[in-house]
Amino acid sequence: MRSRVLSGMRPTGALHLGHYHGAIKNWVQLQHTHDCFFFVADWHALTTSPDKHQTLSAHVYDMVVDWLAAGIDPDQATLFIQSRLPEHAELFTLLAMHTPLSWLERTPSYKDRIAKLGEGESPTFGFLGYPLLQAADILIYRAQHVPVGEDQAPHVEITREVARRFNHLHGAGRTEPVLIEPQVLLTDTARLPGLDGEKMSKSLGNTIAMRDEPEAVATKVRKMPTDPQRVRREDAGEPTRCPVWALHAVYTPEATRDTLAADCRQARTGCLDCKQPLIDAIVREQQPWRERAERYLANPKQVQWIVELGTERARTVARQTMKDVREAIGLAY
Amino acid sequence: MRSRVLSGMRPTGALHLGHYHGAIKNWVQLQHTHDCFFFVADWHALTTSPDKHQTLSAHVYDMVVDWLAAGIDPDQATLFIQSRLPEHAELFTLLAMHTPLSWLERTPSYKDRIAKLGEGESPTFGFLGYPLLQAADILIYRAQHVPVGEDQAPHVEITREVARRFNHLHGAGRTEPVLIEPQVLLTDTARLPGLDGEKMSKSLGNTIAMRDEPEAVATKVRKMPTDPQRVRREDAGEPTRCPVWALHAVYTPEATRDTLAADCRQARTGCLDCKQPLIDAIVREQQPWRERAERYLANPKQVQWIVELGTERARTVARQTMKDVREAIGLAY
Repeated sequence: MRSRVLSGMRPTGALHLGHYHGAIKNWVQLQHTHDCFFFVADWHALTTSPDKHQTLSAHVYDMVVDWLAAGIDPDQATLFIQSRLPEHAELFTLLAMHTPLSWLERTPSYKDRIAKLGEGESPTFGFLGYPLLQAADILIYRAQHVPVGEDQAPHVEITREVARRFNHLHGAGRTEPVLIEPQVLLTDTARLPGLDGEKMSKSLGNTIAMRDEPEAVATKVRKMPTDPQRVRREDAGEPTRCPVWALHAVYTPEATRDTLAADCRQARTGCLDCKQPLIDAIVREQQPWRERAERYLANPKQVQWIVELGTERARTVARQTMKDVREAIGLAY
Repeated sequence: MRSRVLSGMRPTGALHLGHYHGAIKNWVQLQHTHDCFFFVADWHALTTSPDKHQTLSAHVYDMVVDWLAAGIDPDQATLFIQSRLPEHAELFTLLAMHTPLSWLERTPSYKDRIAKLGEGESPTFGFLGYPLLQAADILIYRAQHVPVGEDQAPHVEITREVARRFNHLHGAGRTEPVLIEPQVLLTDTARLPGLDGEKMSKSLGNTIAMRDEPEAVATKVRKMPTDPQRVRREDAGEPTRCPVWALHAVYTPEATRDTLAADCRQARTGCLDCKQPLIDAIVREQQPWRERAERYLANPKQVQWIVELGTERARTVARQTMKDVREAIGLAY
């Protein structure tokens, strides 16, 4: 049996290349080797912005289309929406009774947030509990692996502690643990820089969307700033000072990059020349996504149906876990 | 339409006279004037003792039998079990995203607990969130009234704040508020002293159970300590120093009490004489409970069926509220 992997993503709307290289590309690979459960973390989206909700519905749909466009195969992976499964909330509530506040107060993301709060501001109870909701998301599917970047590893560690404590309190006389301690699956993902050299992020307005049209991609890349010390074409440039170079590192083969770097340092080519192979590579990468997306966008019912099926598949697993959890706690009447 | 009342009780097993006079007696009256929803707060039982769970199932059953024995009419009131309705957990989770931590940190029960903790001990996340789970319990049924003692009034106040905030954030363009702010229904209940004069409480071992046999009642009351300064029968006693007197205050008509007090102060009667009318009154009060309980105990399926029906009735209301809540937040896809 393939080991189960769980991963989720907040519905922030149409995805960009940063999402693809940071997570989705890895998901597409994992679906062939693991039993993958990928979910829309819409409740998590509320932990940080409970009031900006009116676009959630459109964002969920756009994001799932991008998953499918990127090559997630709904016959291989189970795609579902967190808020459609109240079982997550039930497990979160039950685990809350077992989890010391101190475990949550010491998570790095919480401490960061507290440090940034103004006088008299309070984080929400849900924000404090967000690693616990994440633990419930993982444990309810008895996932053996969670693909995360290093910054997320502490959350998986809490999940493991929560599972251990639950099994310790309620596992007496059982041959199998009620909850499974998941392992971190450290993944080799690229942190994609945006158009300005900062991390690509919607809030910074420096993104290329997965489904941007070729013309839009070309325009955006052409407008990118380059080495600030190369003012005129005749000036020699230094690639390591150039935001475009960081994208070449992801998109361009090493041999080509060597040539581009040499040309830049000797002012043999202009910046637009250097950008063209990058534009071509991005547009080439996007081509199959655009084609798949078109088919799904022409048939929104199919996307709904995929999510519906995935949600029901997830529900079967979630319900079985909750049955075992309730029995273990003594809540089965 | 009768206004809706919600009240719950933790499943601590067979109820005692303190429960009856402190709450159930009031419930029996309310069911004739209000649309009453009474529930077994089994999740709440976990907030304080997550590990003492193996008896939960028996406790739930014993408690519901006592409700019915006391005269709760399942055709008038809706009886159900919290943990059977994951909708409570879903609303709790959603409200968590809107509720500042500071609202929960300042509740008196939480501050009490913190003050009593030892070095290095941490309350659980669930204990901190318990007033919010209570808010979800109330709001999900759109209860207009919550019968509480004065010590519980701050929790109803949090419930009102939570509802107000939710309606403010998500109520734009609606003619009706999504969640109803409940009113406190301050109730005239008696705080029954136990066999030792302290508050009657299972943990103090000073209780008379609602279904104690007449012989057991007689034995318990006869063993009760009386005025410590009345050592011999010939000594004059002082009722206000006597734990039995506190029970007479609840069970014995004023005229009779005047006679008993005079007899005590002049050493005309012994303590056993004084105790007899109390024993008689308690046994008389219990008589109909014992009869009803016998019928239900002979037919456990009927009790299960009552809870089953009540739970389904509650589910209909809870689901409608959650539908509205999800729509208001933008989680309806």
